[in-house]
Amino acid sequence: MVTIAWEEGGVRFLDQTRLPHEERYVVTSDYRVVGKAIRELQIRGAPAIGVAAGFAAALAVRSPEIATLDEARTALSAALAYLEQTRPTAVNLFRALDRIRAAALAQSLNGVGDLRDAVLREAQAIMEEDIQACVRLGLHGASLILPGSALLTHCNTGALATAGQGTALGVITTAHRQGKVRRVYVDETRPLLQGARLTVWELLRLGIETTLITDSTAATVLQRHMVQAVLVGADRIAANGDIANKVGTYPVAVLAARHEIPFYVVAPTSTIDLRTPTGESIPIEERDSAEVTHIGGVRVAAEGVRVFSPAFDITPNEFISAIVTENGILRPPFGPGLAGAGGKGSSDR
Amino acid sequence: MVTIAWEEGGVRFLDQTRLPHEERYVVTSDYRVVGKAIRELQIRGAPAIGVAAGFAAALAVRSPEIATLDEARTALSAALAYLEQTRPTAVNLFRALDRIRAAALAQSLNGVGDLRDAVLREAQAIMEEDIQACVRLGLHGASLILPGSALLTHCNTGALATAGQGTALGVITTAHRQGKVRRVYVDETRPLLQGARLTVWELLRLGIETTLITDSTAATVLQRHMVQAVLVGADRIAANGDIANKVGTYPVAVLAARHEIPFYVVAPTSTIDLRTPTGESIPIEERDSAEVTHIGGVRVAAEGVRVFSPAFDITPNEFISAIVTENGILRPPFGPGLAGAGGKGSSDR
Repeated sequence: MVTIAWEEGGVRFLDQTRLPHEERYVVTSDYRVVGKAIRELQIRGAPAIGVAAGFAAALAVRSPEIATLDEARTALSAALAYLEQTRPTAVNLFRALDRIRAAALAQSLNGVGDLRDAVLREAQAIMEEDIQACVRLGLHGASLILPGSALLTHCNTGALATAGQGTALGVITTAHRQGKVRRVYVDETRPLLQGARLTVWELLRLGIETTLITDSTAATVLQRHMVQAVLVGADRIAANGDIANKVGTYPVAVLAARHEIPFYVVAPTSTIDLRTPTGESIPIEERDSAEVTHIGGVRVAAEGVRVFSPAFDITPNEFISAIVTENGILRPPFGPGLAGAGGKGSSDR
Repeated sequence: MVTIAWEEGGVRFLDQTRLPHEERYVVTSDYRVVGKAIRELQIRGAPAIGVAAGFAAALAVRSPEIATLDEARTALSAALAYLEQTRPTAVNLFRALDRIRAAALAQSLNGVGDLRDAVLREAQAIMEEDIQACVRLGLHGASLILPGSALLTHCNTGALATAGQGTALGVITTAHRQGKVRRVYVDETRPLLQGARLTVWELLRLGIETTLITDSTAATVLQRHMVQAVLVGADRIAANGDIANKVGTYPVAVLAARHEIPFYVVAPTSTIDLRTPTGESIPIEERDSAEVTHIGGVRVAAEGVRVFSPAFDITPNEFISAIVTENGILRPPFGPGLAGAGGKGSSDR
């Protein structure tokens, strides 16, 4: 199973809206198809969005109509503006596009061919770094897991959400290989059911004992101490350690704190945004009401009702036991550690 | 719209599993059809379950094969044993069946006709008391609501859940008539979507501004202070004020406390069970896994996964700002007030 890959002349990605029923791949040479796939969650997960955006930019400069370096940079500029509009919360998207922009502006480029190579090389570097980061996230994170643990996770943070083995789910995968995982409880993650559709599918393929629960049942699982730790990803980490992650993360964090169960955030440093001082400054995307009123195309709610559907929520740093990055484990207070870990990317935007 | 009613020769009830798409009524003279309707949630809501159980018992003693008082009592005994098995958590069910049993054992009964009349009279009394209790719950509860309030509720506690206007939703209805309700946020209430399917349907019919949210979005609504109070019902209230209510109530209560938003429990005294000392002693029903893995008959989760699906959760009394009964408003510590309020029913079981 490959979430996203570069092929000669195109990008190949798995349409995650079809899972778990159908493993359908899309191959395209049109960057707008990739952008639409990000917007419509055929490709999702903060790191995977960053990788996909890089490849989309590489497609944009390969149009046969582009003849000069200036034309390539103009086309790229339009493509970046389009791709930036796809999803507002995951900072990995902007981080990736900033890297592509910088690569395309390098003084050393001589002609369109050079620029195409440079953009593609940068996109592939983003992917390779993500794969490597996942390996290291897995090892650092697994060191926090006690043998025989049952774990709780929310949404999908696995191979489907990254170019590698995943962030929070990558930690679970690594801990499972180390024989430490007894069972994983998976929040179904309404409205789009990434837990039920994607995480369960990944965990069963890995041979990990898995129990699906509704999102509100997580409180009971924590209250009864049925798990020993909670692991989630992040779509953006603010400078003070507040995080934006899939809606439903915040109540799990509060309940975990109440029941003294460790709550770990697992994300590559590309998710850290030092320009965002606290969680309150993170823009939160609101999704279409039909995602709540309809399930599988069938209306479940009474006609005519309004819907409030933020895609993400903010978890204040006080509820986070540790933030795991590819460089190691940060403990509260997170500010100084994040300033160091996110240093490389801190001036990107 | 009538949730449940006695008609000559039968019980008429609304099949709530068809809502909001279809308003389908069932008329039956077979008490097992009513019992099955309780088990399968065609009839649900703690007070409505009590009323339905009473009418089911009245049907059981009307079989034409019953000729003597002894035969009637034997048939009733079997019916009560069957009905007690339908759902374990709502104490209103057991309370109603105990009242029916006592009525059927009265020394004064002379013959089958007398017994039939006595059982039906008791069932109708249970219904009438519930209707009256809802009116008084509404008035007491509405006194807690500030003008211009937005409110949050979970599951369905309206006319569909009772013989009257509802418990928590009855308070909202009364406060709306008093012009105090700006908007109601409704948790969809997975897995069976009683909020999205039933509460939204009721609120829109009442002309109340309604916003549907996923269950985990409630945390964001509370975090942003988008509501001024939370109102929920209860399936059982223990002697210390701990409550069992629809799964997902507990996390909302914890989040409301964190954000200093009042959390009100609204339930008739028939929901109080003084024989249950604390929430930990309340039996929690577990539902079928297909309710989580399938939505509207369509599988959403990957094949082969286990499911943990408790129907209710326990909210400790420390998170409850007030318990509203038909007799008034109880404030913490709840023990003494509940002992008084639930006195009448406290020796029923």
